[in-house]
Amino acid sequence: MHMSFSVAVAGASGYAGGEILRLLLDHPQARIGALTAHSNAGTSLGDHHPHLVDLADRVLEPTSAQVLAGHDVVVLALPHGASGAVAAELEALGEDPVVVDLGADHRLVDAADWEAYYGSPHAGTWTYGLPELVVAETVGRQRERLAGARRIAVPGCNVTAVTLALQPGVAAGLLDTTDLVTVLAVGYSGAGKSLKPHLLASEALGSAVPYAVGGTHRHVPEIAQNLRSAGAAEVRTSFTPVLVPTSRGILATATARLAPGVDVSDDELRAVWRAAYADEPFVRVLPDGRWPTTAATAGANTAHVQVALDARAGRVVAVTAIDNLVKGTAGGAVQSLNLALGLPETLGLPRNGVAP
Amino acid sequence: MHMSFSVAVAGASGYAGGEILRLLLDHPQARIGALTAHSNAGTSLGDHHPHLVDLADRVLEPTSAQVLAGHDVVVLALPHGASGAVAAELEALGEDPVVVDLGADHRLVDAADWEAYYGSPHAGTWTYGLPELVVAETVGRQRERLAGARRIAVPGCNVTAVTLALQPGVAAGLLDTTDLVTVLAVGYSGAGKSLKPHLLASEALGSAVPYAVGGTHRHVPEIAQNLRSAGAAEVRTSFTPVLVPTSRGILATATARLAPGVDVSDDELRAVWRAAYADEPFVRVLPDGRWPTTAATAGANTAHVQVALDARAGRVVAVTAIDNLVKGTAGGAVQSLNLALGLPETLGLPRNGVAP
Amino acid sequence: MHMSFSVAVAGASGYAGGEILRLLLDHPQARIGALTAHSNAGTSLGDHHPHLVDLADRVLEPTSAQVLAGHDVVVLALPHGASGAVAAELEALGEDPVVVDLGADHRLVDAADWEAYYGSPHAGTWTYGLPELVVAETVGRQRERLAGARRIAVPGCNVTAVTLALQPGVAAGLLDTTDLVTVLAVGYSGAGKSLKPHLLASEALGSAVPYAVGGTHRHVPEIAQNLRSAGAAEVRTSFTPVLVPTSRGILATATARLAPGVDVSDDELRAVWRAAYADEPFVRVLPDGRWPTTAATAGANTAHVQVALDARAGRVVAVTAIDNLVKGTAGGAVQSLNLALGLPETLGLPRNGVAP
Amino acid sequence: MHMSFSVAVAGASGYAGGEILRLLLDHPQARIGALTAHSNAGTSLGDHHPHLVDLADRVLEPTSAQVLAGHDVVVLALPHGASGAVAAELEALGEDPVVVDLGADHRLVDAADWEAYYGSPHAGTWTYGLPELVVAETVGRQRERLAGARRIAVPGCNVTAVTLALQPGVAAGLLDTTDLVTVLAVGYSGAGKSLKPHLLASEALGSAVPYAVGGTHRHVPEIAQNLRSAGAAEVRTSFTPVLVPTSRGILATATARLAPGVDVSDDELRAVWRAAYADEPFVRVLPDGRWPTTAATAGANTAHVQVALDARAGRVVAVTAIDNLVKGTAGGAVQSLNLALGLPETLGLPRNGVAP
Repeated sequence: MHMSFSVAVAGASGYAGGEILRLLLDHPQARIGALTAHSNAGTSLGDHHPHLVDLADRVLEPTSAQVLAGHDVVVLALPHGASGAVAAELEALGEDPVVVDLGADHRLVDAADWEAYYGSPHAGTWTYGLPELVVAETVGRQRERLAGARRIAVPGCNVTAVTLALQPGVAAGLLDTTDLVTVLAVGYSGAGKSLKPHLLASEALGSAVPYAVGGTHRHVPEIAQNLRSAGAAEVRTSFTPVLVPTSRGILATATARLAPGVDVSDDELRAVWRAAYADEPFVRVLPDGRWPTTAATAGANTAHVQVALDARAGRVVAVTAIDNLVKGTAGGAVQSLNLALGLPETLGLPRNGVAP
Repeated sequence: MHMSFSVAVAGASGYAGGEILRLLLDHPQARIGALTAHSNAGTSLGDHHPHLVDLADRVLEPTSAQVLAGHDVVVLALPHGASGAVAAELEALGEDPVVVDLGADHRLVDAADWEAYYGSPHAGTWTYGLPELVVAETVGRQRERLAGARRIAVPGCNVTAVTLALQPGVAAGLLDTTDLVTVLAVGYSGAGKSLKPHLLASEALGSAVPYAVGGTHRHVPEIAQNLRSAGAAEVRTSFTPVLVPTSRGILATATARLAPGVDVSDDELRAVWRAAYADEPFVRVLPDGRWPTTAATAGANTAHVQVALDARAGRVVAVTAIDNLVKGTAGGAVQSLNLALGLPETLGLPRNGVAP
Repeated sequence: MHMSFSVAVAGASGYAGGEILRLLLDHPQARIGALTAHSNAGTSLGDHHPHLVDLADRVLEPTSAQVLAGHDVVVLALPHGASGAVAAELEALGEDPVVVDLGADHRLVDAADWEAYYGSPHAGTWTYGLPELVVAETVGRQRERLAGARRIAVPGCNVTAVTLALQPGVAAGLLDTTDLVTVLAVGYSGAGKSLKPHLLASEALGSAVPYAVGGTHRHVPEIAQNLRSAGAAEVRTSFTPVLVPTSRGILATATARLAPGVDVSDDELRAVWRAAYADEPFVRVLPDGRWPTTAATAGANTAHVQVALDARAGRVVAVTAIDNLVKGTAGGAVQSLNLALGLPETLGLPRNGVAP
Repeated sequence: MHMSFSVAVAGASGYAGGEILRLLLDHPQARIGALTAHSNAGTSLGDHHPHLVDLADRVLEPTSAQVLAGHDVVVLALPHGASGAVAAELEALGEDPVVVDLGADHRLVDAADWEAYYGSPHAGTWTYGLPELVVAETVGRQRERLAGARRIAVPGCNVTAVTLALQPGVAAGLLDTTDLVTVLAVGYSGAGKSLKPHLLASEALGSAVPYAVGGTHRHVPEIAQNLRSAGAAEVRTSFTPVLVPTSRGILATATARLAPGVDVSDDELRAVWRAAYADEPFVRVLPDGRWPTTAATAGANTAHVQVALDARAGRVVAVTAIDNLVKGTAGGAVQSLNLALGLPETLGLPRNGVAP
């Protein structure tokens, strides 16, 4: 393939920015252009990401539409609330790159949801970057909408894990979606590089730390949005993330009661999950008796999934492991970008993890 | 106080055995007698527990009734299925020490439960060693039954965490116990020292690893037994433990719907939990807005608890952190033993943890 | 014993402050008085140290001589450079408590050393708080000088580890001290709670991170000072600390050539170390073939030590493990304080660690 | 490039075997053939390496010459002592593949060294697989000898780290090699999957654990062999590995005195190291003031190196970080194999790490 595309990354000194650069370095069609940062402008990328040897000497420029202009693709790895303005400034310059937003600003369809959970005006809705998402109304997948998209909103990492865990059962009408319970073991890189006391190594090592307990996490409405896309009429979910001492990884345990009148065996349940992902290059339903671990997903764009029926409890238990920075952020972004640019969806993306 | 008691520990080379020795070394009334082991007999305690400096040179004897005889108290830290035989042999020798079983053999009241989850004949039921357990039928606590007890079955560590999380709401009639969901982040010491590949450091580091998913964990019927003690008519619970890379600690996230007709605010809910544990020396309901972490419980016999109402999800979310080896095993054992011997319940037990 | 002492702690919200409170809570003679902080004044101790259940509701007062006045003992857990001023202000108020400085200000005897490594004026020299330190000129130990001391400077944590590793050989004249090499694996709590990017959990997990390489670490002159106390004429040491993903613990590997003309076997070497610490309650020379681990020292005031002769390399290799916050800081402080107050040196101090 | 080669891997269920498969999956010329195991024969590769999604369903065959026959390349990831027999059996079948031994059997040139450290007969010497190794006698590098090699012995992982740290100074005649001191922080995967108590997660988490202290480690003679290749007349080194709680990574701290009569500044020293590796694709000398971390090397075949002169101590301190499974084992193997097969040395090998 001789096509190639240039790509600028805004917010290159953060973890999401670094991860998309790691993936783009291995992408056969990507030419890495401007790298920008806010307070870190003027420093070298190697100061922040010494693992990115091939870009270590690149100097970070200030984040501005002028610097980002002139690229085929612009990736925004910015704090919440910043991406809308940058996109508008690019348009004002007459630029129309494909813009991929790794932040939350453009994920939600419903402005009221945004305002309830984020407490600020809604920036608008972009094409949602989860290719595997079931779109019940077209009996298709979100990848169809990503073909040719010019503005892409990459999902929240926890949302991707929970959606992939539950949507086969939702799409098949097996689950009661009005009383979901999800608990996630999450690594620290999901919290970014902000300097907060609870993110210090001394606090994290040897501990398990819940946060945003009681339904306040901003990923809650996005999960509901996705499961409605997959066919749910009403979605209510309890959602509890627990920080555990790993740098990467999300292990989502998601449970739902069987929908009224549904009678299904453990084997049948697994067959439904297996069928739902049979053609998905980046979702692996594990063999019977095997359960996902986050270590097996490290560095890879693959989600590992398993499901069981707990007949005594009357609940389906689905577990998904992903690398929050890859399938949960930068890998999902590249996968969506491939679709937007008309490239093979899997181009340049690792399926195999780095373990142990 | 001039009373003192001699205590032998069978299974002293394992983690539970080591932990009860750590606590007994600081107990003002305990005199540590025979220490026994199975395959490790003949080695020094310091070979297995180099942290126990004061006992490092003690040689482990073979586990037998003869060696364990002649003590006021015998603690059994043995694999499942072994404690019944040892207790019987002690009786056959005419010995009648207080026996504290850290294993599972004598926890369950219902032999059918035992057989369903353990697949072997039931050894019988001993006095359950969770002093804080609500006993609804007497409107009291389990500590009343522990006074003067001669045979004590220490609860499973996960069970203690889940019970303490939920029982205030159960006892107050606030929760629908027919559809509980519990997910636990657990440290590796709970799995003991058995040499299994998935317990290797290389596998554990950087990973989150679920196991016994789908309702097969042996702690499930014990949770139900406890919540029935606290007043539940019927208990059904989904239960998913997730190994996380810490050596100690359990963080239990437990959710329940409000019982039909119950209307309660977040503040009222916390007041119920706070009242339930107001007089408990080893349960701390955290201040509003603070959530338990396992690091804060390390080395201590204290459970940290917090609760919230997730109104959108329609669920109460209760979180408990404990040190699985202390409040979850050896500390709970000493606390129960104190009660059995008529000593102050808190004697020799640490309330403050070792952190960071 | 009916004597008791009141103690105030300045800098109570930091890790060193929290640790000395943990120990003082278990000290039978200590009455904990004022707790102060700088930016955290007005918050509760439990906000910073949720593991200290017994003090969780205590409100932190601003650090000032007025607040610290009226106590028998004042512990200063302050940043470098702050303790001299506080001590002077206390004197100005006519106060003369025993003052224990956990910081570096008063450790060094030689003002030129201080200025070379710290770059600021020297605050003066207090009685050095390492009771086990050999004082060659009196053929005694530092504990003799600590009896009745009114101003105590607690050693640097790395210094304690290296000193205990090497001083038996120095005191016996076995080692060439002009070319020592020390490399230390150190936990993150030694770096305190300062909000620096390299101290974030995401950076620490899965990594080993050297710092202050090339002889710039401020503990270098203090090591030399101690080994001169133990009998060395001239001391030169390479010193490289490596952060490893643990919250606590220092494992110091210290090597020295045998002094010219010395011929000694491995067994004889170990006998020298064993004899040097035979009467020390808080130093354990391990059995032959056993090497220290930091896990075995967690929470304890005990240093674990072992030594070997590497005949091929021509070097003695001595290894010490300590808990940096206990024997390395707060435990060493309490031990020295006990001596200063005429109490038994071991009073209230744990010898056994918390493991695994 | 249209050439391709088939490769069989013996010992595929271990960590080294899994890692070379991960790399070969991304190698554009490799076709993965037979995968064999000993006790794990008959199981699926995914049972042992769930991260290798693309090979998860491959069934492991028994390790035998018959199964390994018919491939262009055979990689042996076997315990010490097993590779010589397999190679002989292949020859007996008339097979002559390129054989790459990840084990120790064929690394040492001197049979007496082998017998002194391994205690068994020497299997012979194969072409040493460290392309960057300086060969002073030809004023070249080892890569010249690897061109066209048919039998390759991959270095020990610790040896690679120490060699790369010190050889620039050795080759330049700057260092006194008769008194080297090396201390290494090492991750647990280097110890393999053997089921030993000290490799359990509970023992590893929160600890730093030295082993083979006092000069007994089998990598000692191999380090000497390499530094003699780089120009040293006599090599004596103290060597202390310390297990730290990471799954991957080696951080080697290596120190040497300047050779008699050498006078060099810190800047000049760094210039020597920088020049030595200026053309090396897989060795990065970091910018001034930056020190290697193992996290930056995870998953990559790149060694990160830095050096400083500690003028006060009179020692050069060089630090190298590598991923023990990549540059230390499987990556170094593929790099050497590329050379042996006449392929570009860097083909299929990652230079950038996976962090955080």
